[in-house]
Amino acid sequence: MDLKNRIQIKDTLKNVGKEVTLAGWVYRKRDHGKVSFVDLRDGSGILQIVSTGGTKITGEKEIWGLESVISVKGKIKKRPPHLVNKDLETGKLEMEVKELEVVSPTGEALPLDISKDIDKIHLDTLLNYRPLTLRSPKMQTIFKFSEKIEEGYREFMKADGFTEVHTPKIIPAATEGGANVFRVDYFGKDVFLAQSPQFYKQMMVGVFEKVFEIGPVFRAEPHFTSRHLNEYTSLDAEMGFIKDESELMKKLTQCILFIAGKVKKEIPAADKKLVDYSDLRIPKGGIPEITLTEAVKIINKSRGSRDEAIDLDTEGEKILGEYALKKYKSDFIFVTEYPTGIRPFYQMPTEDWRYTKSFDLIFRGLELVTGAQRIHDPEMLVTSIKKHGLSPKEFKDYIDLFKYGMPPHGGWGLGLERFTKQWLGLENVRLATLFPRDVKRVKP
Amino acid sequence: MDLKNRIQIKDTLKNVGKEVTLAGWVYRKRDHGKVSFVDLRDGSGILQIVSTGGTKITGEKEIWGLESVISVKGKIKKRPPHLVNKDLETGKLEMEVKELEVVSPTGEALPLDISKDIDKIHLDTLLNYRPLTLRSPKMQTIFKFSEKIEEGYREFMKADGFTEVHTPKIIPAATEGGANVFRVDYFGKDVFLAQSPQFYKQMMVGVFEKVFEIGPVFRAEPHFTSRHLNEYTSLDAEMGFIKDESELMKKLTQCILFIAGKVKKEIPAADKKLVDYSDLRIPKGGIPEITLTEAVKIINKSRGSRDEAIDLDTEGEKILGEYALKKYKSDFIFVTEYPTGIRPFYQMPTEDWRYTKSFDLIFRGLELVTGAQRIHDPEMLVTSIKKHGLSPKEFKDYIDLFKYGMPPHGGWGLGLERFTKQWLGLENVRLATLFPRDVKRVKP
Repeated sequence: MDLKNRIQIKDTLKNVGKEVTLAGWVYRKRDHGKVSFVDLRDGSGILQIVSTGGTKITGEKEIWGLESVISVKGKIKKRPPHLVNKDLETGKLEMEVKELEVVSPTGEALPLDISKDIDKIHLDTLLNYRPLTLRSPKMQTIFKFSEKIEEGYREFMKADGFTEVHTPKIIPAATEGGANVFRVDYFGKDVFLAQSPQFYKQMMVGVFEKVFEIGPVFRAEPHFTSRHLNEYTSLDAEMGFIKDESELMKKLTQCILFIAGKVKKEIPAADKKLVDYSDLRIPKGGIPEITLTEAVKIINKSRGSRDEAIDLDTEGEKILGEYALKKYKSDFIFVTEYPTGIRPFYQMPTEDWRYTKSFDLIFRGLELVTGAQRIHDPEMLVTSIKKHGLSPKEFKDYIDLFKYGMPPHGGWGLGLERFTKQWLGLENVRLATLFPRDVKRVKP
Repeated sequence: MDLKNRIQIKDTLKNVGKEVTLAGWVYRKRDHGKVSFVDLRDGSGILQIVSTGGTKITGEKEIWGLESVISVKGKIKKRPPHLVNKDLETGKLEMEVKELEVVSPTGEALPLDISKDIDKIHLDTLLNYRPLTLRSPKMQTIFKFSEKIEEGYREFMKADGFTEVHTPKIIPAATEGGANVFRVDYFGKDVFLAQSPQFYKQMMVGVFEKVFEIGPVFRAEPHFTSRHLNEYTSLDAEMGFIKDESELMKKLTQCILFIAGKVKKEIPAADKKLVDYSDLRIPKGGIPEITLTEAVKIINKSRGSRDEAIDLDTEGEKILGEYALKKYKSDFIFVTEYPTGIRPFYQMPTEDWRYTKSFDLIFRGLELVTGAQRIHDPEMLVTSIKKHGLSPKEFKDYIDLFKYGMPPHGGWGLGLERFTKQWLGLENVRLATLFPRDVKRVKP
């Protein structure tokens, strides 16, 4: 394989009329006697290559099926206008192959043909054969979006003075008091996987004022739904010297607007066509806000029921999403004024302790972010822990932090996979995860 | 607290002669009768503020000790030339405080004074009181370097066409055959924490050709040394269509040079002074290379011993580091030609199977990177698994990947904390970790 002179497929656009070397995977193959039309795929794109009787083939030529790795040498030509493939950047070009080397043939028949109807393949099959199905241009595109969202998040946060941190995933105690954590055998001792970087990012406010973290979190929730993962990537933030949660909501809105602009501008149109992409709709005046009490009224009215729901469920979130779109032309809606009893103990209560200074952000009918101001006074924290039926003793180290001097502060956690799922209209959050982990799946 | 008009300390440089509001932590405090000199610290820097009998103090004023959070309002003035603190950017300024609000007082005496001799505090104490000790400017600086190294790595990799990925940390089987993995209770089933993204990043070469990942890895190694962590941040990379491992070594060298330039340029001189920083030395012709056989000879000669060492130990790495510096004026040296038997089964062997196409990179006498070309032929992989005394059955899913068509490829893993430790001359890798995890420590 002449790797020294190899160029990537996207660079054929600059090499029309020239002889070049390409290498990649056989995405599609149509044989017509001695002539073969192959769609060659590499990390940068897809190009049709034509091999004829005159093509010199080397390597294990008998058995090169779909997804075989091949290397080809030949001239890049313009295709006749009526044969141009408009879905591809390189669809107006093809290569006339002089030499073809079979580098890594796929010996046996593949379990599935990823070039055909990737949308019709059953979710379980898509996930079982992930190393193969991720190669399909549509699946690739999902993760290009996901990478761009993360890039936008990081760029915004850094420009805003946040410091990026890495906090431990192995932790000595369950953050929120016990449920839904995975237990790890740590040299014979029981420890846990972090459900969120909550306590650590708060500690880091004392150091850098404003921090963010992008990393895995682990939730031992037994739910098997289209929106739950047991391991996911959380985009976390925590900032000091805030007035209240409204400042967090403002910052988060700016951040999302920045990401929206970046994705709109930097993801190529061809990629956007492969998924159900549409620009994010956020009203000029900002993301609309609604209290939980109002939200529940709207939901109950829509359902025609009189259930006294105290929190949002899946259907409720969907109804709120429709409401936000209809009433405000907004893809997002903030829900505020959550009662103290249904939120974690570390969230700052209102003066009368009825509500917390917290919010959820619903994106196209799905909870995307939870955020709040935190309690920064150690005595108030002890009171809150007790009110939540927990023991201050268990949280001694955490409470001690606030004796070292902590400013008013707060932050949020945003699920990257959910963001991607909702934005691209994917039916299942697993499709926005390279190798999803759920109650039934730890493979591949 | 007038947060609306608050500015950060670094911005006092632009506000000389003006009245501003600041908020932060009491880093140092010297009382002279009615006059107090306070070094106020926020996320951006340190400024001396002077409160006098005329200062109006509100809040719980009796008990504001070190690390209390306070907010102050007053005029920014230039200090007399003989009182300028040259170690600080803002050392030529001070604030004459009109109003001071005690926001979060530290009631009790703190366990230690971080403004005094942070270098003399015992490592265990530094780590036990991490939320406090990380606030010291020196500790902060370590993580600013670490953030910049990561930033440089990401910037280089993205510019070079690598796609950033997140692979699962919960995995069904131990990557390299069993030892040194942490076991997780996953809904009653035994699974493991990933020691590296090895298999997953290889799968992703089939998708994007070139990928990188920055994330936590978990090693259940029982070593208690100054260079081992049981959880650390790994800078991983994997790329397809390579000729051999020399291409990886070249790419890695370019990447390190890029990071070196970025850190040199973008980290302020004042921060560099706080740690034992020096620019990275890499010869014009690139990082020197040495085979393991040669390396062992040099080490044995230096030790005056005739031990037939087959791999490098801590002392051996140190000797090699000194050798590289003396002979090549280089902070780095590549060690190559590791025998097959002491390297993982997935590394590509040389034609005679004596060596692997792999390398280690020693940085100032410490192993920083391990890299290699990988086996991409399923039959060769089965042979290698057997030669390593392992069972191909256990690696069925992994072997199957190579039946889907994989190009020649390879990659590396680089430990972020070790990079920071060696670069800044820290005595222990734990100091380059916010909240280190070792055999004895999972707290805080």
